[in-house]
Amino acid sequence: MHAYFISDSTGITVETVGSSLLAQFPGISLQKEVIPYLDTLEKAQDLVTDLTLIHATDAKKPVFVLSVVKQQIRQELQKLDGVVLDLFEAFLTPLEQHFEISPQRSVGQHFTATQNPRYEKRIDAINFALDNDDGCRLKEYADADVILVGVSRSGKTPTCIYLGLQFGIRAANYPLTPDDLESGQMPPALKDYTHKLFGLTIDPERLSDIRHQRKANSRYASLIQCEDEIRMAEQLMTKHNIKRLNTTAISVEEISTRIIADNRLKRQF
Amino acid sequence: MHAYFISDSTGITVETVGSSLLAQFPGISLQKEVIPYLDTLEKAQDLVTDLTLIHATDAKKPVFVLSVVKQQIRQELQKLDGVVLDLFEAFLTPLEQHFEISPQRSVGQHFTATQNPRYEKRIDAINFALDNDDGCRLKEYADADVILVGVSRSGKTPTCIYLGLQFGIRAANYPLTPDDLESGQMPPALKDYTHKLFGLTIDPERLSDIRHQRKANSRYASLIQCEDEIRMAEQLMTKHNIKRLNTTAISVEEISTRIIADNRLKRQF
Repeated sequence: MHAYFISDSTGITVETVGSSLLAQFPGISLQKEVIPYLDTLEKAQDLVTDLTLIHATDAKKPVFVLSVVKQQIRQELQKLDGVVLDLFEAFLTPLEQHFEISPQRSVGQHFTATQNPRYEKRIDAINFALDNDDGCRLKEYADADVILVGVSRSGKTPTCIYLGLQFGIRAANYPLTPDDLESGQMPPALKDYTHKLFGLTIDPERLSDIRHQRKANSRYASLIQCEDEIRMAEQLMTKHNIKRLNTTAISVEEISTRIIADNRLKRQF
Repeated sequence: MHAYFISDSTGITVETVGSSLLAQFPGISLQKEVIPYLDTLEKAQDLVTDLTLIHATDAKKPVFVLSVVKQQIRQELQKLDGVVLDLFEAFLTPLEQHFEISPQRSVGQHFTATQNPRYEKRIDAINFALDNDDGCRLKEYADADVILVGVSRSGKTPTCIYLGLQFGIRAANYPLTPDDLESGQMPPALKDYTHKLFGLTIDPERLSDIRHQRKANSRYASLIQCEDEIRMAEQLMTKHNIKRLNTTAISVEEISTRIIADNRLKRQF
């Protein structure tokens, strides 16, 4: 069966919510396609014609999830042959009644303005994450909202970037090296910032897998090395009362939101 | 007025769709809050009690957008005093009828599995973007889906990371330096990959602003330097038939989706 996510803008919103809904039916195998920038009546008419033809003989008709602002285009898309789930149709009317004003029904309000403070903050936070990655270039820890610590490949870098990109949170990270760990001491660069530290840990088997993808058959990737590093890293976190999260089975989205909740950080809007 | 985005998982889906809906009412000033991991009936009961008390005397009651799978919790949240927009309530029933099976109504299907191929591909693509950033560490251009070219601070790095994180696309980037530009030639490292190149350009005034934030009052940030670099970069792109996009007024989400559309790249699901 096919699922189409149709948007008059980037398609990111409708892909996110559509995937979330369809994930509730894991038994249904779906071929998904995003159709972004569907922003004129002509494009909508062409799409209806094309998709009706393509799926004319399908035993099960497609699912269409729509995030389209203009009513005229949405009405055209109601002609699509299948189940049509229309985000704006379902929710704009109750909001309109509550706010007692009409929606402006123009496209892409949520993303266009590169000059808006939230957007600037997100881009600034991505740059901060990149500049303060792996303790190697800058160490602007005084400006950080949070500093992630953990052994190499425990998930620090993607998490820092996601925290910046999605939430505008300035996240630095510091890798706990074997040298740091063998000393058993808090690395000097972090001493003034223990209140900002958050630990990432991971099961040694999974860490070893990830490191083998990076440097196959190295000592660095060996299970015994991973076990030693993780054991010492967890001891250090316990000793210094650093909260920690095991990242083995959870995604970067979930790691990020748990860090935000545990540290009472503020999501930017 | 207040808006609450309530989720039994990370809250990212409901924040995305809720912000998109509310952006249609730019005249309404809203204080927004995300409440993630609301995954038990007890938490729902407490939340209803707390929020009813907090907003008891509000002239305009809050908006609540819900992304909660379990029906029992959703029913409790229907007691919230305000407008309740329930994503799952609105859309699961039509899907259920169409698929002729019941949804599994368990939490976080779309994110939990770190072992799923799409997730691995995304993390791999983020690492690829970082490794192949600014032409400085690796140059794995043979493995790239796309290679962004442009002057320093034209938006290449955040775009490459977003393409990886959101879409699992492997994007490298190569900065056009003043030396590259003055030669007027395609940089040798790129010669075999012209079919993968995509140019980012930007208005010189905006570029100068961004560079001043980075290195205030430098020659690098001066308007005349920015004008020269942009003019030469655009000439080079024209000469070699490299498609380009002006990033001045558009967000990293929009830059990314336009690159995907123009290069017919495949979004990963």
